[in-house]
Amino acid sequence: MTMQTPGTSTSAPVFSQRRDWAADNVVGFMMKQAVDHPECISLAAGLVDPKTLPVEVTRQAAERMLGDDSMARTGLQYGTTEGSQRLRDLLLEYLAGLEETSVGELGIDRDQLMLSTGSQQMLALLCEAVLDPGDICLIADPTYYVMLGTVTGLGARAVAVDADEDGMRIDSLEQTLESLDGDGLLERVKMIYVVSDFDNPRSVSLAVERRQSLVEIAESFSDRQRMLVVEDAAYRELYFDGSPRPSAWGFDEDGQTVALVQTFSKCFSPGLRVGFGVLPPDLVGPVRDLKGNQDFGSASFNQHLLATVLEDGLFDGHVEGLRETYSAKRDVLANAATEHLGDLEGVDWLVPGGGLYVWMTVPEHVDAGFGGSLFNRAVEQEQVMYVPGDLCYIGVDGVRPRNRLRLSFGVEDADRLAEGMSRLARAIRAEL
Amino acid sequence: MTMQTPGTSTSAPVFSQRRDWAADNVVGFMMKQAVDHPECISLAAGLVDPKTLPVEVTRQAAERMLGDDSMARTGLQYGTTEGSQRLRDLLLEYLAGLEETSVGELGIDRDQLMLSTGSQQMLALLCEAVLDPGDICLIADPTYYVMLGTVTGLGARAVAVDADEDGMRIDSLEQTLESLDGDGLLERVKMIYVVSDFDNPRSVSLAVERRQSLVEIAESFSDRQRMLVVEDAAYRELYFDGSPRPSAWGFDEDGQTVALVQTFSKCFSPGLRVGFGVLPPDLVGPVRDLKGNQDFGSASFNQHLLATVLEDGLFDGHVEGLRETYSAKRDVLANAATEHLGDLEGVDWLVPGGGLYVWMTVPEHVDAGFGGSLFNRAVEQEQVMYVPGDLCYIGVDGVRPRNRLRLSFGVEDADRLAEGMSRLARAIRAEL
Repeated sequence: MTMQTPGTSTSAPVFSQRRDWAADNVVGFMMKQAVDHPECISLAAGLVDPKTLPVEVTRQAAERMLGDDSMARTGLQYGTTEGSQRLRDLLLEYLAGLEETSVGELGIDRDQLMLSTGSQQMLALLCEAVLDPGDICLIADPTYYVMLGTVTGLGARAVAVDADEDGMRIDSLEQTLESLDGDGLLERVKMIYVVSDFDNPRSVSLAVERRQSLVEIAESFSDRQRMLVVEDAAYRELYFDGSPRPSAWGFDEDGQTVALVQTFSKCFSPGLRVGFGVLPPDLVGPVRDLKGNQDFGSASFNQHLLATVLEDGLFDGHVEGLRETYSAKRDVLANAATEHLGDLEGVDWLVPGGGLYVWMTVPEHVDAGFGGSLFNRAVEQEQVMYVPGDLCYIGVDGVRPRNRLRLSFGVEDADRLAEGMSRLARAIRAEL
Repeated sequence: MTMQTPGTSTSAPVFSQRRDWAADNVVGFMMKQAVDHPECISLAAGLVDPKTLPVEVTRQAAERMLGDDSMARTGLQYGTTEGSQRLRDLLLEYLAGLEETSVGELGIDRDQLMLSTGSQQMLALLCEAVLDPGDICLIADPTYYVMLGTVTGLGARAVAVDADEDGMRIDSLEQTLESLDGDGLLERVKMIYVVSDFDNPRSVSLAVERRQSLVEIAESFSDRQRMLVVEDAAYRELYFDGSPRPSAWGFDEDGQTVALVQTFSKCFSPGLRVGFGVLPPDLVGPVRDLKGNQDFGSASFNQHLLATVLEDGLFDGHVEGLRETYSAKRDVLANAATEHLGDLEGVDWLVPGGGLYVWMTVPEHVDAGFGGSLFNRAVEQEQVMYVPGDLCYIGVDGVRPRNRLRLSFGVEDADRLAEGMSRLARAIRAEL
């Protein structure tokens, strides 16, 4: 036995194939950028605004929960794999509110609603329950990059479907399915993933009529190959203009096609990591078995804390405040873009109706990607950081556009958003 | 499109092979038994005593954390995949205390300590990072049944190693390795799993000299096939007799062989689901990548709550109280066994020095297994429930003894423990 300094491993690797598939984590890499450049104004971080975090609301809920002996002990004890019945019942009501219907009309059993550690765990569990190595998940391009890692981390393949300003294009979905069928690959298509409201990275929503078409197309293939539509509605509550959209899940009349995944990370607190999925009945057992093996239940404490927030009517006021805050910050960022970049040919951006991001396109010859000239200039000279859009692309035919930027108005305050856009505009002009 | 009642699925299955491997969850099945028989005294539940849950300590910590604006916002915001640096630094000190050494002498970097959702998630991540379908994990038999599900849920194989009252037998470990080598299977042995302190289901600890031998054997094979020793120390703090044992991990001088996994579920609160792993340096990246894809971090709120408990010196007093409570309850259950079963030939039990369980053996012709006569009689006629020991066996050559019972003194109070043992004794006598 020889002594070695930790970190200087000479042992043979012992890793599974799954380990090899687990891609380098983009979120981790972006966080490292942020740590290495603390002086930067961050238009990169997909975090929620720290000033909006529900400190007072959580304090009130914790006080009631921990002041009630029985409620406290329930929260501190083990829960079940599927999560607190108390919270799941409250979430049926909550979901009915978003769908503008009643709990009865939702047409689901409480057991179909399962809690998870953020929505990411539910997305990962659904992928594990459905995707074998070599299977295909169709994804609107660009998309939420963590999901790409989860799909490829299982040895499965993400295949891009074109998207426009109304989300995934239905004609492109049909063409992609036909093309895969022509290649003898239709039987490998097990999943279609969409972020229906204010997606990451573009804050684009899937048009309501497309939601219905998407479900119908998936259903129409189900006698040849069942395809699970995974609807990620992480940003659903962050609409700036009146009311929530009906989900694609609501168009799934026989309840076999769509799994709806939501979270309280964006609309309440990411630190609690409470997400949930509404699953087709035959997915419930498999997903619960997988979660049983992985952690046999997310933190019961957090579930009861959030249940107390909902029960005590502390949630609605909080999320209304959030909408006002983010809406005002969207205006600041969009107005600053108009002020500093409005006259520039080939520089465009989407002004979103909700969510946390402004998606910007610069002329094709500008390299906004990682390691590219614009990114380096922005970070090193102008001290402003963004997420290079190329990270969010699968790429139709593998081509990932390098002239897109994801700009978040989540974290920084109004003054720094305006200043950040001014700096970014200088960097862009210098590249032209 | 046809309307269907939820639950009457006629769709084709869409499931991955992993789903097929995910065994029916024993914990879930036992919970269902408990729900179906609420009248029973439960010597089955592996829960901690609800009366010992740290309500007041948690209330104090929550008050300080949520009363400090900066600390509150950190807890309510996203954390990192590996978990809060604040808590991980505190856990280095905590671990040094258990190992009776200093943080410096631990010889590890903070980055080697990663937080998880309970220890179960860390066990599952380690299995995913290491085990491919067909790979082998050696396990002392009987063992923690959830781990069996996790191993087989990956398509890997659990192979039994004999254990006695000092835990895994080293001669049996060597014989098993030789025998697998003879079958050309040595290259599939990637992991050795041990619960080193007061294991589930027997509350037996691995003798200290065996800990060292175990590490040496794993190291001695590492030029042919690297084997990761996974040391599950979930019950480590629950010793009734003076002081914690040194871990097997402490004998791993080059730091490449053992992953130590601990949790605050047993010694503080299961509802917080805070566990951690101390990993060999080259496992850190792979495990973090896998966790990144699964949930990109456990709940930051809970990590900061527990950090506040540790910082404010609220932990030690709590766990000392726990040891007293469980030690007294062990005495009640063991004394009741002596009173009601002491004269019976072929009925024996282990009086543990820590943990939550008494392990009982009844004569071989008594069927104590699920669906067996004793279990049915105990539940239906005597209204007392236990965990049939056969659930905890892999079985050497697949033979699972059906004359063992796991009796927990975790949940019920002293009176009900005594009454429960009296009822169980009546059921056993009726079977003889």
